Amino acid sequence: MNFPSRIHINEVGPRDGLQNEETILTIDDKVLLIKQCIDAGYKTIEIGSLVHPKAIPSLADTEDVFKKLKNSDQVEYRVLITNLRGVQRAIDSGIKKVKLTVSASASHNMSNFNRTPEESVQNFADCCNLARANNIEVSAAISTAFGCPFEGNISIEQVEKLVNAFQKLDIHEISLSDTTGMGNPKEVYEKCHYFKEKYPEVKWILHFHNTRDMGLSNTLAAMSAGIDNFDAAFSGLGGCPYAPGASGNLCSEDLVHMCDEIGIETGINLDKVIEIARNIEQLIGHPTESFMLKAGKISDLTTKIIKQANK
Amino acid sequence: MNFPSRIHINEVGPRDGLQNEETILTIDDKVLLIKQCIDAGYKTIEIGSLVHPKAIPSLADTEDVFKKLKNSDQVEYRVLITNLRGVQRAIDSGIKKVKLTVSASASHNMSNFNRTPEESVQNFADCCNLARANNIEVSAAISTAFGCPFEGNISIEQVEKLVNAFQKLDIHEISLSDTTGMGNPKEVYEKCHYFKEKYPEVKWILHFHNTRDMGLSNTLAAMSAGIDNFDAAFSGLGGCPYAPGASGNLCSEDLVHMCDEIGIETGINLDKVIEIARNIEQLIGHPTESFMLKAGKISDLTTKIIKQANK
Repeated sequence: MNFPSRIHINEVGPRDGLQNEETILTIDDKVLLIKQCIDAGYKTIEIGSLVHPKAIPSLADTEDVFKKLKNSDQVEYRVLITNLRGVQRAIDSGIKKVKLTVSASASHNMSNFNRTPEESVQNFADCCNLARANNIEVSAAISTAFGCPFEGNISIEQVEKLVNAFQKLDIHEISLSDTTGMGNPKEVYEKCHYFKEKYPEVKWILHFHNTRDMGLSNTLAAMSAGIDNFDAAFSGLGGCPYAPGASGNLCSEDLVHMCDEIGIETGINLDKVIEIARNIEQLIGHPTESFMLKAGKISDLTTKIIKQANK
Repeated sequence: MNFPSRIHINEVGPRDGLQNEETILTIDDKVLLIKQCIDAGYKTIEIGSLVHPKAIPSLADTEDVFKKLKNSDQVEYRVLITNLRGVQRAIDSGIKKVKLTVSASASHNMSNFNRTPEESVQNFADCCNLARANNIEVSAAISTAFGCPFEGNISIEQVEKLVNAFQKLDIHEISLSDTTGMGNPKEVYEKCHYFKEKYPEVKWILHFHNTRDMGLSNTLAAMSAGIDNFDAAFSGLGGCPYAPGASGNLCSEDLVHMCDEIGIETGINLDKVIEIARNIEQLIGHPTESFMLKAGKISDLTTKIIKQANK
């Protein structure tokens, strides 16, 4: 197994975590959460989506959240978009980084956007032009890259078509997303190895869900293939519409904890992200799937017992 | 990453799972569960403990459970013991395989047995003699091999001392246990690689807990080091007395599911072990940490959606 010496974690909780919650947080709560994430050490935060407010009501206030944050040289604020309207909203509010998203699965993309994945990416050309004319950086995300609830397995070829299409649009930061938690470590290793070797100039980001407890295993598999950039969400929020009640995104504090234990640098303060996770349970009003919140970190365990023994 | 083509899974739920439950199952319920495990394909089942009934009241009926099962050429019934009294009880009831357990951590062993690990293993000489004189196979387990709640890190040297002591007793099946879920994939890989290389004649069994969501990751790390024999417990039962409410043993059905997805043969029928897990939630009267029970297997997801689409 290859463990990198350092990885980069993008906190996607404000977008992919909160979008699934019934409780809609206030703008101020969101801003405070994001500021706490910055204080914990995150340098990339996905703060929301610029999609139709009716599609994701809980993220309808993304521009207002951003306005209270303002651009920073230290932190990259990323928003998810799906069309030209999203770029225009980014321009209007001053957001400097957008992530265009498309599904590797034709039926998944059809059901969401009523067009094939290739048609989606063709439409992205205008988005790229408009964004770049306004100094907005463009990245891309390929969802259902490790399996689709409608189609089952997704082949390397299906993913690669989109990778090539994004290359033609001069997009060199691509996130591969296991949207519904269907990937397994062997598949993840193979896909990551293939893409990392063949497209070394791309900045690859891996986005896992922990739906079937393979989130950390898939992360290790990706690391073994040379990947060092991962999305994760505070408290493991988020979910899969096809498996209600199941776990959501890869949990940030559980990932940071594993990295701390292995000795992989993340630049993130574990105590602070555990505290954020605790705050979130208060804000959303229900327990989450965070292992750190239930078990505590390993180092706490020994410290606690030593303290008790010294009493 | 190296994935073995096949692994062997030992179902330890009847012992390490049920011993932590408040609800004590009836002998008949336990027998039925174990028979369901056999039907699902398990060839090795840890059916209980022969320790003082006051120490673990929920397993006080281990001999009675065994008597209703009877010995089989097809299935190995293993029981955990800690002393000569345990061997005598195995003889009296006709049990043919015992597992002697000792902790790699001196303070953990002291707190449980009031002697050093080395003293424990010395006392095992009489156990081995008596067992072998009665055709009982002896295996060994080294608990806290990946961390101790009192001492923190456990070194390879601490574990190896016990490995050597067991070798002297002619015990060549040794289980390394992450009793309180403190191991991480790097440490697991290093320890497994070291012991597997240096003692290839030993049948190594790895026993993980999922306390901090590293159970499957640790399993993959052990596989990468050449290990192909793992303990797991139905529905992920069990726990850690130092982290109440936290996850327990590596969950059998989640492990089988991951193996099925990767293409690692286990000989276990996933649908049947999911059904067992569901039965257990009924028997113990509370939800468990099983991911399969919450999310379902990946193949079900696509089947379900295809069925809905065809309606």
